[in-house]
Amino acid sequence: MDHLKAKIRHVPDFPKPGILFYDITTLLSDQQGFRDTVDALAAPYMGEDIDQVVGIESRGFILGAAVATTLGCGFVPIRKPGKLPAASFRESYNLEYGTDALEIHQDACAGNQRILVVDDVLATGGTARAAVDLVKKAGGKVLGVAFLIELDFLNGRAKLPGEPVYSVLRY
Amino acid sequence: MDHLKAKIRHVPDFPKPGILFYDITTLLSDQQGFRDTVDALAAPYMGEDIDQVVGIESRGFILGAAVATTLGCGFVPIRKPGKLPAASFRESYNLEYGTDALEIHQDACAGNQRILVVDDVLATGGTARAAVDLVKKAGGKVLGVAFLIELDFLNGRAKLPGEPVYSVLRY
Repeated sequence: MDHLKAKIRHVPDFPKPGILFYDITTLLSDQQGFRDTVDALAAPYMGEDIDQVVGIESRGFILGAAVATTLGCGFVPIRKPGKLPAASFRESYNLEYGTDALEIHQDACAGNQRILVVDDVLATGGTARAAVDLVKKAGGKVLGVAFLIELDFLNGRAKLPGEPVYSVLRY
Repeated sequence: MDHLKAKIRHVPDFPKPGILFYDITTLLSDQQGFRDTVDALAAPYMGEDIDQVVGIESRGFILGAAVATTLGCGFVPIRKPGKLPAASFRESYNLEYGTDALEIHQDACAGNQRILVVDDVLATGGTARAAVDLVKKAGGKVLGVAFLIELDFLNGRAKLPGEPVYSVLRY
């Protein structure tokens, strides 16, 4: 997967000093890069009979919708608070300073839908943990949690015990 | 396209009293609904040799990435201010009260890339106008501006003179 890593731009000191940001926009804007990225994310789930891909706002919308299109299934958004118009469940999670929250429509995965959760980066795992919990509250069965990038040194996987986690690129 | 309209949920008084919100999440979460939606959005551009689909944050990311996957081209995000990590262009536009802004990476469409802009709804046209201007600043050539929904009574098309506008569903 080094050909994908080579297309990711490294931006030092974003969003704050001392942080090296992996900018995937240079990978996604490249025709072959986008196609290879989406195919790599979707590959383990071909034939798994996924009903819906759940994407986490905002970059998870890009990758999640692309994977849903490739798998031929539906797409469900998990959004920041106050953005979803109908009755929703909310999960809060801890940040370095303070807390944040995510929401899903209460009827989004009703009837034990087979769900693949997709996001761009697995860092500390707080967002992914909240997303998995939301899917289960909304009636879904989590078949997989897939990331384009996993930052091993932050050990986000530890927040997802028992969940089938997959990542395309690891740092 | 009435089979697509039938899957859109109507939420009265969202985000504020007196507004009828067309909630497309019920359409997108449906396997056949999502597929038909994306195919309808992409259909006019098959064979147009689009290099990149530009999607507008956030719901435009979902539809844009799905259309890019279907067309086999790259994907470029237009984001809210401060979200893009590298050097960006900014366009402000007027809201009912105050202004808002969008950004694109300066190198996103360099070299006269052939661009399709995708968003969920064409309302007053302010967002779409800003997006088209950003694509041109970033070096792209706008081949089309496509929406899932067009709200005819708001006449957003008037803000896009000379641009090839297409919408799947009209209200």
